[in-house]
Amino acid sequence: MAELRQNMVTKEWVIIAPDRALRPDQFRIPAKVLTHQLPVFIHDCPFCPGNESETPADLMRWPESGPWKSRLFPNKFPALSRDGERVYSHDGVTRSMTGVGYHEVLIETRRHNSTPGLQSPQTILRTLNIFIARGRQIAADPRIEQVYYFKNHGPGAGTSIIHPHCQLLALPMVPFSVRARIDEQRRTYDEEGVCPICATLDAEIEDGRRIVSANDKFVAFVPYAALSPFHMWIVPRRHGPSFLDLALPEVESLAALMREVFGRLYYGLNDPDYNYIIRSAPQRDSSSAYLHWYISIMPRVTRMAGFELGSGMSINPTLPVDNAEFLRGQDPGQAMDDDFEGARLAAVAGDGDA
Amino acid sequence: MAELRQNMVTKEWVIIAPDRALRPDQFRIPAKVLTHQLPVFIHDCPFCPGNESETPADLMRWPESGPWKSRLFPNKFPALSRDGERVYSHDGVTRSMTGVGYHEVLIETRRHNSTPGLQSPQTILRTLNIFIARGRQIAADPRIEQVYYFKNHGPGAGTSIIHPHCQLLALPMVPFSVRARIDEQRRTYDEEGVCPICATLDAEIEDGRRIVSANDKFVAFVPYAALSPFHMWIVPRRHGPSFLDLALPEVESLAALMREVFGRLYYGLNDPDYNYIIRSAPQRDSSSAYLHWYISIMPRVTRMAGFELGSGMSINPTLPVDNAEFLRGQDPGQAMDDDFEGARLAAVAGDGDA
Repeated sequence: MAELRQNMVTKEWVIIAPDRALRPDQFRIPAKVLTHQLPVFIHDCPFCPGNESETPADLMRWPESGPWKSRLFPNKFPALSRDGERVYSHDGVTRSMTGVGYHEVLIETRRHNSTPGLQSPQTILRTLNIFIARGRQIAADPRIEQVYYFKNHGPGAGTSIIHPHCQLLALPMVPFSVRARIDEQRRTYDEEGVCPICATLDAEIEDGRRIVSANDKFVAFVPYAALSPFHMWIVPRRHGPSFLDLALPEVESLAALMREVFGRLYYGLNDPDYNYIIRSAPQRDSSSAYLHWYISIMPRVTRMAGFELGSGMSINPTLPVDNAEFLRGQDPGQAMDDDFEGARLAAVAGDGDA
Repeated sequence: MAELRQNMVTKEWVIIAPDRALRPDQFRIPAKVLTHQLPVFIHDCPFCPGNESETPADLMRWPESGPWKSRLFPNKFPALSRDGERVYSHDGVTRSMTGVGYHEVLIETRRHNSTPGLQSPQTILRTLNIFIARGRQIAADPRIEQVYYFKNHGPGAGTSIIHPHCQLLALPMVPFSVRARIDEQRRTYDEEGVCPICATLDAEIEDGRRIVSANDKFVAFVPYAALSPFHMWIVPRRHGPSFLDLALPEVESLAALMREVFGRLYYGLNDPDYNYIIRSAPQRDSSSAYLHWYISIMPRVTRMAGFELGSGMSINPTLPVDNAEFLRGQDPGQAMDDDFEGARLAAVAGDGDA
């Protein structure tokens, strides 16, 4: 019989209905061109080196001089505008506000054919460091209430641009669903005196069956009430509401774990489309004892239908313990060389576009 | 500049960021085989007449004797089980319950090549009448707290079976996001003495610009804070929490409006994939003054990415007034004949599979 499970942090219920016909390896993506099989460089990719004039000017880059390895700039088609005041309007049955905020793009590497599952810890570290540096700048803007750091990989995850990139979206308000979850986390804290994520993390470590990978500072696991196959959380062992409060050794530790987790996903499921999002506390709740930041990774191997969209509930046709066991058994593979120029020279010696 | 809008019923914020490059007609689906161009009958479709043995036995059918026109039966791969007790488990950081409930399939017509946008009001009326009759039976089951009636049309909406069908899912609990919304609707009622949906409906009718279609009992409109392009609500003018309380003249009126709305969507956007879901009150809230049932229609013409999944917020690249104006300008077309046997004979005289 199926089972309903509630995530004790988010309070979301999920229907865990394991389809006996589906083993974890049946979620492997059928034959396709994998990211690492693409050319290292594409002449008309707007994010490849040499095409910087096709994007807005950099807000940040690393290193600061010489050829860039990572760069961050405003989204060319931003959902929100950097300029303007936060103005609320309310006329009884409608409520609106000006769309002020930040919408930015972070190019992770010069290489076209890369994704975190193929990247070295150093490359992922650059991404995280730039997010943190930019997030700290934005935190000084009093118009901003909530910042999201996220990545869409593949068309099934909502992106048409292949060159590895992440996005940052800074909102002038806190989304309703976030507020509703925070209320529940505060209630748990008030009633039980614990941060619900700390309690969940302790229980997951003790149980062990849903852990995918862990190091001394971070733990990656498939939640007990995972919303979909291979849904994962990466949670810091140290309690803290804000991603921006990480110290450098913690960021290094996170980058190392992400490299391993995304590697297992890439090789285990054959480069699936996925999203990840960093769930950090709202700007004005960045010292709340009941909030604990984390990363949610959502492989897009199933599709949301009318029930999920309408009810906000999910049906997961797999068992979280099976997903975790499968991922633990996968080889995270080797990171690709981040030396773009060398790789490009080698490729040019070999074939055409690369 | 973009605008943020809050839906005053659900309290969800949405980023309305009209992309000047996109006109409503650019959401028309590019050339594809439209539903009405498919064969009227497919030999190995499990939902076509003659293949009844491939599905579980009927729970309801219409008419009761002679060839069926519509039938309802348990889903062959149900997400929930009809048998069993509702048993809660809680061990501190995990909470679960037995997966009891109903998961059923309703075949709308014998015709393979049909969808509500092509159906006569009589065919849609059958669907609604069967849902109501079955919903009333299920309401007697004390294990059930919430029932959803929904349809997935097309692979982008999460279904691989083409033959026109809807689903019913009856849950033993109320989803968290539904509870969070209900809390807000009750708060509005307590503070302002109005049902927020009645207030919204009055305002939309007075404004008029977002109305798609209306008759004396129902109004279809694109919400002020529509979550995605062509997102629509169909709201009954008569306040009522439960879809199951409709009287027959109301159901007839709803079927007529649905035929028109889905026809405009089908012909206007070239048979887009979509979901619709009937949002009726939880079983134990079926007389609450602050709840008002409605239908939400969600065309799947854009894709949810990491930001939407992670924040629960949406970015709508179109203006609701433009969507409504576009749909008002479309011809709802002619309903197809529901006379399957006649259509099939005509088709057999013409070509092969049909």
